[in-house]
Amino acid sequence: MSTEISKLGEFGLIRHLTQDIKTKNAETGRGVGDDCAVLNYGGDKDILVTTDMLMEGIHFDLTYMPLKHLGYKSAMVNFSDIYAMGGMPKQITVSIALSKRFGIEELDEFYAGLRLACDAHNVDIVGGDTTTSMTGFAISITCIGEVEKGKAIYRNGAKETDLICVSGDLGAAYMGLQLLEREKTVYYQQLAEAQKMEGEAKTRAMKNLETAQPDFQGKEYLLERQMRPEARRDIIERLQKAGVRPTAMIDISDGLSSELMHICSQSNAGCRIYEERIPLDYQTAVMAEELNLNVSTCALNGGEDYELLFTVPITDNEKMEQMKDVKVIGYITKPDLGMALITRDGNEFELKAQGWNPVEI
Amino acid sequence: MSTEISKLGEFGLIRHLTQDIKTKNAETGRGVGDDCAVLNYGGDKDILVTTDMLMEGIHFDLTYMPLKHLGYKSAMVNFSDIYAMGGMPKQITVSIALSKRFGIEELDEFYAGLRLACDAHNVDIVGGDTTTSMTGFAISITCIGEVEKGKAIYRNGAKETDLICVSGDLGAAYMGLQLLEREKTVYYQQLAEAQKMEGEAKTRAMKNLETAQPDFQGKEYLLERQMRPEARRDIIERLQKAGVRPTAMIDISDGLSSELMHICSQSNAGCRIYEERIPLDYQTAVMAEELNLNVSTCALNGGEDYELLFTVPITDNEKMEQMKDVKVIGYITKPDLGMALITRDGNEFELKAQGWNPVEI
Repeated sequence: MSTEISKLGEFGLIRHLTQDIKTKNAETGRGVGDDCAVLNYGGDKDILVTTDMLMEGIHFDLTYMPLKHLGYKSAMVNFSDIYAMGGMPKQITVSIALSKRFGIEELDEFYAGLRLACDAHNVDIVGGDTTTSMTGFAISITCIGEVEKGKAIYRNGAKETDLICVSGDLGAAYMGLQLLEREKTVYYQQLAEAQKMEGEAKTRAMKNLETAQPDFQGKEYLLERQMRPEARRDIIERLQKAGVRPTAMIDISDGLSSELMHICSQSNAGCRIYEERIPLDYQTAVMAEELNLNVSTCALNGGEDYELLFTVPITDNEKMEQMKDVKVIGYITKPDLGMALITRDGNEFELKAQGWNPVEI
Repeated sequence: MSTEISKLGEFGLIRHLTQDIKTKNAETGRGVGDDCAVLNYGGDKDILVTTDMLMEGIHFDLTYMPLKHLGYKSAMVNFSDIYAMGGMPKQITVSIALSKRFGIEELDEFYAGLRLACDAHNVDIVGGDTTTSMTGFAISITCIGEVEKGKAIYRNGAKETDLICVSGDLGAAYMGLQLLEREKTVYYQQLAEAQKMEGEAKTRAMKNLETAQPDFQGKEYLLERQMRPEARRDIIERLQKAGVRPTAMIDISDGLSSELMHICSQSNAGCRIYEERIPLDYQTAVMAEELNLNVSTCALNGGEDYELLFTVPITDNEKMEQMKDVKVIGYITKPDLGMALITRDGNEFELKAQGWNPVEI
């Protein structure tokens, strides 16, 4: 009998698979355990490598995700990991496996999105693999980037009194997903009802469904955040221009709580963040209200924001307060103070990282 | 209506997807079109990158492929692409997607094979992604390697009169696959017959099947070549020691014909190879006889050999004749002479590359 992988959880599984990996080559600066591996092949640059695998039915749903957006997003999530090390993405390899239901036009759509993302971030497609899948669509992208030698920003450099900063706003991509899932459910309910009808009523209902478009007015931003995330190259450039070097950095893919936990545990530190300082968009708040969800919980655990979370020395406070689209949300403490959220009414709650959604193994 | 991808064929598809890709970064030496991309990040090394995706039911069959062997082979096929550029593999990232039927023990088996391959070739596992799949097992590995600056060996350097060399022997991996497929068919036939039986006869037949082991005696080499291929690091080292620099090189994954075609078309050349010089193992020949197949056809089109095919200047003839486990099988000609096989009885046949098996899109 074999042991269910879900028993280990995401972080347990990663630990299990990587705990006794020892690197053998001088060229391997840093292996597993950060947003990217860092390689030193000589010269005045270090090389960053990151990879992501996206599976149909797990990471994306083609009933509402257009292939062009999927291509764009697949590239973007990898660029985001390079930026999270303070580096610049340069090349990607793209491997895809597709079932026979895909034609050349669909493949072209996917590649169009991929190229759009690459052009916007000055990245070259340098290789890959295209093959068949028995069932769903699988995407694996590896991104290679560069950073000045010795200047990669890790998760483990946060120090007591450092300020915790976050770019953009949080929770919107998660809300976009809820919105899309809700409309999908509504559509299938209406379809089931139409199929139960007879004669002309059925014909009319089916025709209506064919042309029906869900009403996303006033929620465009949520959809955009879910379907067309933007990796924050601009923030890296802004930090460089301002002469600010983060002490630790990570991108927010699993949710603010989870990423904060990575920084704190790897830096052997604690933290205090303020609920009222978590950046939220108006549409996110409205949608949370509509769905009867706590908007802060969504921002803390939603994930897929692809914003940057980083810490800077307290002496950079003024620069950070002036930096466009960046917000200071708290500070780093001694490790024994743990990780806490200070709520709007002044209470302190322990922050818990959720890691993977239960469906993810 | 969308256009079936199979209409383009493998080479047509790759051309379609890559034809208008222009690289933008100075660090991108060579993008798509060879065994690896070649990147120049400064320093005295060039960086090689290759990636492969393996899908259950397409590239491997878990009914007879043990997970440890699968891990080993998945790594090896990537190393082989690095050697095919004259480089040395240094790091891999490993992404896998698995369905719930896999437990931790199975994952450990896969990783054990992966590590065995990495230890044997001095490669570090530096990252990856582990996620869930709705159905089958998907593996995507990216390998990074190095080669002295400007010394990568491409497919396009073969010149008229160059000798065509191949390492090891060909066709055995393909024969191993045929053998495994045959035994699988036999097993399922016996199972179906047993299930039709009744009472004690059925119990006995089922029990027999449980403990039955296919008889692979005298065919071990074929199985090993299929399940445990070895990337030819030794050949790269031998060439360096002998001071031989191939003018063109590729690894044999799709079959000798197909790889020869890549070298000839990219080098704008033709070739003549001699049937009697194609290296074959005794077991390959016996198995071909058993299956009523032409053994030369198997060696030309079988694939999965992971041997090296390369060309050297004719002045290196003596060195090549003395090199262990390497055979000169023919020579490069002017392009207008085309690609031909000289059969044992002295006839000339045009060589045709098959590329992908039809099932592969």
